[in-house]
Amino acid sequence: MSDLPSRVEFHEEGPREGFQIEPGHFPLAQRAALVDALSETGLTAIQVASFVSPKAVPQMADSEALYAAIRRKPGIEYDAVWLNERGFERALACPGVDVTGKIALYASDAFALRNNNCTSAQMRARAETMIDRYAHEGIGMERALVMAAFGCNFEGEIAPERAVAELVWAHQACRERGFPLPRVYLADTMGWANPQAVRRLVGMTRDALPDVEVGLHLHDTRGLGPANVLAALEMGVTHFDSSVAGLGGCPFAGHGDLRGAGNICTEDMVFLCHEMGIETGIDLEALVEAARLAERIIGRPLPGRLMHAGTLTSYRAA
Amino acid sequence: MSDLPSRVEFHEEGPREGFQIEPGHFPLAQRAALVDALSETGLTAIQVASFVSPKAVPQMADSEALYAAIRRKPGIEYDAVWLNERGFERALACPGVDVTGKIALYASDAFALRNNNCTSAQMRARAETMIDRYAHEGIGMERALVMAAFGCNFEGEIAPERAVAELVWAHQACRERGFPLPRVYLADTMGWANPQAVRRLVGMTRDALPDVEVGLHLHDTRGLGPANVLAALEMGVTHFDSSVAGLGGCPFAGHGDLRGAGNICTEDMVFLCHEMGIETGIDLEALVEAARLAERIIGRPLPGRLMHAGTLTSYRAA
Repeated sequence: MSDLPSRVEFHEEGPREGFQIEPGHFPLAQRAALVDALSETGLTAIQVASFVSPKAVPQMADSEALYAAIRRKPGIEYDAVWLNERGFERALACPGVDVTGKIALYASDAFALRNNNCTSAQMRARAETMIDRYAHEGIGMERALVMAAFGCNFEGEIAPERAVAELVWAHQACRERGFPLPRVYLADTMGWANPQAVRRLVGMTRDALPDVEVGLHLHDTRGLGPANVLAALEMGVTHFDSSVAGLGGCPFAGHGDLRGAGNICTEDMVFLCHEMGIETGIDLEALVEAARLAERIIGRPLPGRLMHAGTLTSYRAA
Repeated sequence: MSDLPSRVEFHEEGPREGFQIEPGHFPLAQRAALVDALSETGLTAIQVASFVSPKAVPQMADSEALYAAIRRKPGIEYDAVWLNERGFERALACPGVDVTGKIALYASDAFALRNNNCTSAQMRARAETMIDRYAHEGIGMERALVMAAFGCNFEGEIAPERAVAELVWAHQACRERGFPLPRVYLADTMGWANPQAVRRLVGMTRDALPDVEVGLHLHDTRGLGPANVLAALEMGVTHFDSSVAGLGGCPFAGHGDLRGAGNICTEDMVFLCHEMGIETGIDLEALVEAARLAERIIGRPLPGRLMHAGTLTSYRAA
């Protein structure tokens, strides 16, 4: 366990991941209350909503109103998702969105077609346009993420070289524009990763891009999420996307039953870190309360475990 | 990952763990159907029911009838739980129970009082009586298990030395009677374990008992179950207690909300093993079907993930 990092950062995606996948529309005040609760936990990055087609994802049609409704707290990045120029323009025009340069790529053409109606090569071309737009706006690059990096429900096994190639391309495209790319993310969009695959792909990505930090976007689709996080922590990975209460999943990932398809659960993974002496800067009790608020809003049991059993703090104090 | 074992055995406890904790009584035919489905998965050990006080655990009052109702398959150990001599006599008298010598001990007095109305020292005395009974019946010892080995909701942190001391005592008590003790289990009864604690306690137990195999009985109470299993696999641990669909939990463990308190999920952990090239002898598709049957019987979503998302087999074949 000698390579465990001393500090890990969680990029909270629950508000976007969670409500994007739920059928029906939740009142703006409730969604804002969840973001506000998360703002009080010590999290430094919260993805509030996405700027995508209201036809494809009607749940995110009122993203502008949501950013207007939240109580912004200094020091927190209130992040957003967009997948094309139109979405970026909306985010840029929306007060309250902390716009950073980021691009998403695909290791699977079949999933790219399903999720974005384009091939992975077409997605690269779109990413190039986005990088140029960011450069034009003077917005620094924050990350490049490759989806379906560990496998794909529509294409099967994905050779790790394909995921690495997408990220190498992104790094090169940024460099050509004199734009440093500080971080790349490997996304296990459909829950194909296992601890060995995590180690292999993180290692290959580091070998190919030694100056770039490698983060992980993991889903707990098939129950291996916490084991995959442990494998990554043991490799010194310090950046994880996650969702409070295990909210989320991808509506186009092709699972018959969506209950099992959420992201790794922020508070459970913060608990994992704290129990192993890794700092996160997060107030775990406050985060568990935010998870319980998410469950009350959604109105059915959510996948998080710690929120149901409680932390160990009170037992240790007694 | 060099210490990964080539083969792992899962001791299935879902039928006992699951129905013991559910309020209300499930029809005998349904409980027998679940055991029969599990018998077709390649599992080699299934804990069907317990012989305990019908006043304390009314759900297990008809254990004799359940053993009579199942279709026994050769090569499978149909196991049972008892906590005292009276329970053992019932198991011994019940056709269809594969009686093996086992004792349970406590690393926490507060939990022993709560769960068994005795101190850990009194539990040792009872265990001694049981070992003598097994010896008298010519039944070989199979395991000694120590509960609350990683921490206790009623006592807080448990020094690992206490858990080790109980198992060393068990080993000595068996040896004094010329009775080899092949295996000891560390039980994380209330979900306090983390990967570092697993490594530490497994290591300490092996150091103290170099000739005894160390298995784990883990709960996924706080979301670290799969990470704890990975840590154990990396130490070469080959024996795990688990529950299909993540059924279970302990009714006296003091969690306010029991939903999060189940055992590690057999099929999710079998999936973890198979994805890392570790054999289990289990037909994962059949096991997932058994998990879905358990969910239909219980009548609410169970914690298992793989059963909801499906395995990767069909995606790989396509």
